[in-house]
Amino acid sequence: MKAKVAINGYGTIGKRVADAVSAQKDMEIVGVTKARPNNESRLAVAKGYKLYAALPEKIPDFKKAGIPVEGSLEDLIGKCDIIIDCAPGKSGVLNKDKYYAPKNKKAIFQGGEKSGTAQASFNAISNYSKSIGKQFVRVVSCNTTGLCRTLHAVEELSPIANARVTLIRRGADPKEIDEGPINAIVPNPVTVPSHHGPDVQTILPHVPITTIAVIVPTTLMHFHSVMVELKNKVTKEQVLEKFERSPRIRLVSADDGITSTAEIMELAKELGRSRSDMPEICVWKESVNMQGNELFYMQAIHQESDVVPENVDCIRAMLGLEKDPMKSIRMTDEAMGLKKWW
Amino acid sequence: MKAKVAINGYGTIGKRVADAVSAQKDMEIVGVTKARPNNESRLAVAKGYKLYAALPEKIPDFKKAGIPVEGSLEDLIGKCDIIIDCAPGKSGVLNKDKYYAPKNKKAIFQGGEKSGTAQASFNAISNYSKSIGKQFVRVVSCNTTGLCRTLHAVEELSPIANARVTLIRRGADPKEIDEGPINAIVPNPVTVPSHHGPDVQTILPHVPITTIAVIVPTTLMHFHSVMVELKNKVTKEQVLEKFERSPRIRLVSADDGITSTAEIMELAKELGRSRSDMPEICVWKESVNMQGNELFYMQAIHQESDVVPENVDCIRAMLGLEKDPMKSIRMTDEAMGLKKWW
Repeated sequence: MKAKVAINGYGTIGKRVADAVSAQKDMEIVGVTKARPNNESRLAVAKGYKLYAALPEKIPDFKKAGIPVEGSLEDLIGKCDIIIDCAPGKSGVLNKDKYYAPKNKKAIFQGGEKSGTAQASFNAISNYSKSIGKQFVRVVSCNTTGLCRTLHAVEELSPIANARVTLIRRGADPKEIDEGPINAIVPNPVTVPSHHGPDVQTILPHVPITTIAVIVPTTLMHFHSVMVELKNKVTKEQVLEKFERSPRIRLVSADDGITSTAEIMELAKELGRSRSDMPEICVWKESVNMQGNELFYMQAIHQESDVVPENVDCIRAMLGLEKDPMKSIRMTDEAMGLKKWW
Repeated sequence: MKAKVAINGYGTIGKRVADAVSAQKDMEIVGVTKARPNNESRLAVAKGYKLYAALPEKIPDFKKAGIPVEGSLEDLIGKCDIIIDCAPGKSGVLNKDKYYAPKNKKAIFQGGEKSGTAQASFNAISNYSKSIGKQFVRVVSCNTTGLCRTLHAVEELSPIANARVTLIRRGADPKEIDEGPINAIVPNPVTVPSHHGPDVQTILPHVPITTIAVIVPTTLMHFHSVMVELKNKVTKEQVLEKFERSPRIRLVSADDGITSTAEIMELAKELGRSRSDMPEICVWKESVNMQGNELFYMQAIHQESDVVPENVDCIRAMLGLEKDPMKSIRMTDEAMGLKKWW
């Protein structure tokens, strides 16, 4: 029997997780919620998802708009084994207290929530087993996921003495029209270090890391300039080989025509990916270099999709569907058509 | 008698240097060149600058356009003590071989030229005296100037063990319509390290520095994420005080409403600066932090203007008008209305 998964918040992350879950053999979507009737609600129904109103008092609004709903969030919670909270940042903790905890339901939160909201923070390749059987787990944010994937790969070659990262963040998602900047570079936060370092440490607690973050006028992807001092001697060829063979890391090359984040997005379209997503972290081959004991590389993060396969693995861990992280990662990646690393 | 200064190339840098030189008591502009008649040529004449055609065969074009010219570049060289080459990048070395060297004329080159083009690379606060009496000197690029100013200030507090910088560069100047990117982050170069580190070392040869550079869709300013390991114990208060009292460094504060490069440019307008320029390197007060022996800060660089006062000081050094760097810097800054540090 398939695990029954519900999505609370069919938005940027929720709709992607719904499709990724539907593609798996061992789980299915029993319903998704929307706060109000709009084109996304309509599309959810058209795709065959059972739609629930986040709040019961909004059910008449959906009916008025001609969009069939099955009930409210509370009804949906009764029908699932686990709920993926993809509600806007910081409302996950409210949903937990109001709905999930009282009903003793397992729930996954996204990176916008504080780490204290959950019993564990999750990144499949780095710490899958810590979430096995847990009730509340947080899948870390897109930037943290990106850093954990490559730093964990590096760590398998040598312990990390010190990591220094500058995060150059996209100003808004492609569909967002109310955010900026249009023409400026914005230190965000203006203080150093940014919160991203401590967030990485919720997954890799032993890695000393300092991060600086800015926002720039682009919508496509985040970008990381990474500098890592290693404790042992490692060659750049070893790093390249490790990245090549790691799940959810894709080497791209300027020499091969991928000179920017825009060309990575074009590649995702050509690969026929759902929504033209690129859930893999893209590392520029030419940027990987070693000077003495310090490793350098540049990577791009597709903020809308890199956490999607992580949510799928997190379901398996929490429900105990699979104990071996690599088996779960491979199942997820094969079903989603991601880079073949196995 | 005032030193006679000529500008070869009345463009983005040339027109600014012309005005900055004109504002000084000990030097004057004897003429400027343009390659072809256009609005900038017309404005130069309207401002009272004597205009020369870069090539003699173009003189008729200027006459046809109704723009009076006094002759060609070669005529202008005969009338000046020193020429500032502000021609497009990499053509300075050609001009040197064809015009300046044969006529034994002193010339200043800009940062777009290779360091080998000149006998010295120049940054006023860091190495003024190395250019005293020299025939050919290169004022380093806007990014290198910005790094030298603040790293030199830091160095006066403690020797630098290692500097790591990520440069987030503007895609094009505000008036440029043929460059990009419009919506992407571009590693440039895609290899690590970028050339900026070695360029800083032409001024501060003893500073170990590694740089990574990317281009983003903004036109206003460059941005640097700076991480500096120091050899001695220094507090962040000492760094802030040092920056506050250093020439051509301006502390800005998010708390005071300057949260981005766009708000820095607005500040420059309110200060009534010529062309709304910000020749000072702007460091965010809140970003200055010390963790153990490592200093962090974020700074913004106005690419069109930070090298302008450097060109003025470079003239004084090369012509031996002033031996004391701080006296020259103060003369320049007072005449240009820059931040009072004295």
